[in-house]
Amino acid sequence: MASKTLLLLPGDGIGTEIMVEVEKQIAILNDVSNAGFETEKALVGGSAYDAEGAPVSDATMTLAQAADAVLFGSVGGPKWDGVPYDKRPEAGLLRLRKEMELFANLRPAICYPALADASSLKREIIEGLDILILRELTGGVYFGEPKEIIDLPNGQKRAIDTQVYETYEIERIARAAFDLAKTRSGKVTSMEKRNVMKSGVFWNEVVTRIHKDEYPEMTLEHELADAGGMKLVKAPKQFDVIVTDNLFGDMLSDIAAMLTGSLGMLPSASLGAVDAKTGKRKALYEPVHGSAPDIAGTGKANPLAMIASLSMGLRYSFEMIREADALEAAIAETLEAGIRTVDVMAPGCSEVGTTGMGDAVAERF
Amino acid sequence: MASKTLLLLPGDGIGTEIMVEVEKQIAILNDVSNAGFETEKALVGGSAYDAEGAPVSDATMTLAQAADAVLFGSVGGPKWDGVPYDKRPEAGLLRLRKEMELFANLRPAICYPALADASSLKREIIEGLDILILRELTGGVYFGEPKEIIDLPNGQKRAIDTQVYETYEIERIARAAFDLAKTRSGKVTSMEKRNVMKSGVFWNEVVTRIHKDEYPEMTLEHELADAGGMKLVKAPKQFDVIVTDNLFGDMLSDIAAMLTGSLGMLPSASLGAVDAKTGKRKALYEPVHGSAPDIAGTGKANPLAMIASLSMGLRYSFEMIREADALEAAIAETLEAGIRTVDVMAPGCSEVGTTGMGDAVAERF
Ligand SMILES: CC(C)[C@H](C(=O)O)[C@@H](O)C(=O)O
Ligand SMILES: CC(C)[C@H](C(=O)O)[C@@H](O)C(=O)O
Repeated sequence: MASKTLLLLPGDGIGTEIMVEVEKQIAILNDVSNAGFETEKALVGGSAYDAEGAPVSDATMTLAQAADAVLFGSVGGPKWDGVPYDKRPEAGLLRLRKEMELFANLRPAICYPALADASSLKREIIEGLDILILRELTGGVYFGEPKEIIDLPNGQKRAIDTQVYETYEIERIARAAFDLAKTRSGKVTSMEKRNVMKSGVFWNEVVTRIHKDEYPEMTLEHELADAGGMKLVKAPKQFDVIVTDNLFGDMLSDIAAMLTGSLGMLPSASLGAVDAKTGKRKALYEPVHGSAPDIAGTGKANPLAMIASLSMGLRYSFEMIREADALEAAIAETLEAGIRTVDVMAPGCSEVGTTGMGDAVAERF
Repeated sequence: MASKTLLLLPGDGIGTEIMVEVEKQIAILNDVSNAGFETEKALVGGSAYDAEGAPVSDATMTLAQAADAVLFGSVGGPKWDGVPYDKRPEAGLLRLRKEMELFANLRPAICYPALADASSLKREIIEGLDILILRELTGGVYFGEPKEIIDLPNGQKRAIDTQVYETYEIERIARAAFDLAKTRSGKVTSMEKRNVMKSGVFWNEVVTRIHKDEYPEMTLEHELADAGGMKLVKAPKQFDVIVTDNLFGDMLSDIAAMLTGSLGMLPSASLGAVDAKTGKRKALYEPVHGSAPDIAGTGKANPLAMIASLSMGLRYSFEMIREADALEAAIAETLEAGIRTVDVMAPGCSEVGTTGMGDAVAERF
């Protein structure tokens, strides 16, 4: 069996704690299923800055480029608030996304039945929710130049960020959306602000053309991003696949995640293009939640989103569908059994810490 | 009594229908309270484009600049989807905002007790909600240049929008936020994406400095816009005044409005600076909802957000606090009496149309 390399980048805050629980599941895959995963570990974010002077070192970038998949924890925290802009923890994550060309960010927003009551929304609005936000991840205002703060002759300053999209960037994310829709209900909703932004006009045009020329059998709808955000809050089940740009995707996927009441549960996959020669594609898997500096070190963090990120990796990078299903079932069973970290604790359930939760999943995996 | 001029711009879709109901309330103010309002009416949006070749004509701009306040309905609709970008209905609204320098957009998100059940959120999450989103309205990606779609030598295209903020723009909106907070709980939350955008770094810096130098007695908190959006959905009552840029404000205020279950109820005020000579400031009042082309002409539109916009006008442009309070009380009483348009209809209530709702408020005003 060909070896499978996984690069683990735990990062900052709760990242290191939740990664430990993923390693338990990887050990099971190796011991029980003989999966042959080889793992390496490296620093990223503030901890990389502290130890190596950069939020991701060139050596770590080389490891990431070579790995079959990267598992990423979380980065950032108040400790690094004063760090120069290009060395801030998030810059490590952004460099990984950009240099690995991980343009397609899949963010499922699923409402686990056992957690429906944890949502701030009414049960009937979110029960059974299963939508997928596909966020463009290597373009837009995140990377466009100029991006700077300049001094003006009048003593004032001017800050500039640039939203840029080229044809090929929109084409490839649109294709990814329709390809995903094929495996689901066949419906894609594209969101932009074409009434205000030229990039919105162009986004709308290209997605419409790809639909017409290449996927005429699928359904395509368009929403303005603000109206789409409202509809997401009012009646999220009307959507299936939502495709949107980097910044709108950041906002909308976080809001969708929060709707489910399962923020600590939601994984994401960031995928590159399939290499024509090797048939492989670069990939990074990370929880949607952040580094939660307020609870880091207390042993209370919920590791399920991180474990579910491994499951997405099994599915998308290794075609280990059976194992991915089994891991997801283990997560659902753990929740059904009433085992909860404090963030999703409910009356009648038993509270466990990070380790307890990782063990509970491992037992059922 | 000095005359007070109001320019009415009903616009497109339901805009014309709901403006009629506002005119009823103005008539009462003139007849009963001898308020002395003089109104003029002009076209804006798609209807202005159809009749005058531009979404707001120079003549209408002159009227708007001269008026004591503008009441704006709504613009846009599928009819104008094919119109050239710079003539689209929204361009009329954007020109009004920009040329009148209406930089401060106040969007209260209030949960009317009678409507709490109309929300997709649980009652306890939104009952009693009363927050104010202060959106910067004349800067950012809405107006920054370059804003264009260009042909590249390789046959592809590139779309560009530019997010730009200068010192004075952030200073004045920050001051507006703290001044508003003085009349409320004293707490301001500023939202941006400083971890990704230079304009976010700069926004954060300037707001922090204005707080420290000019309003040290107020409380200032910072949130990343994505995390802030999540918190808004999870527990909106933790906020009071939220200050944010044009694009984030567009998204976040729409989401906040939807949380309340009262979208058809929420007004907004767009204010300019106070003129040192006249003591006056330019102002435009408009509902947060759009032109709802799907129900335009059916007589079903809810006019309450438009009527509440007049009430904001009484308060902010004419210091008619007593009348503003009375009009708001009339709206609340109408709702308590179980009189509802279809969008907020509930069991046991009586359904009325646009006219019936306008009349019901007028009776109680
Ligand atoms: C950490 C930050 C740079 C990142 C982003 O804005 O993309 C995060 O919010 C996310 O959604 O992955
Ligand atoms: C109509 C449109 C241009 C406008 C905006 O994006 O500002 C609207 O969504 C709003 O929020 O007032």
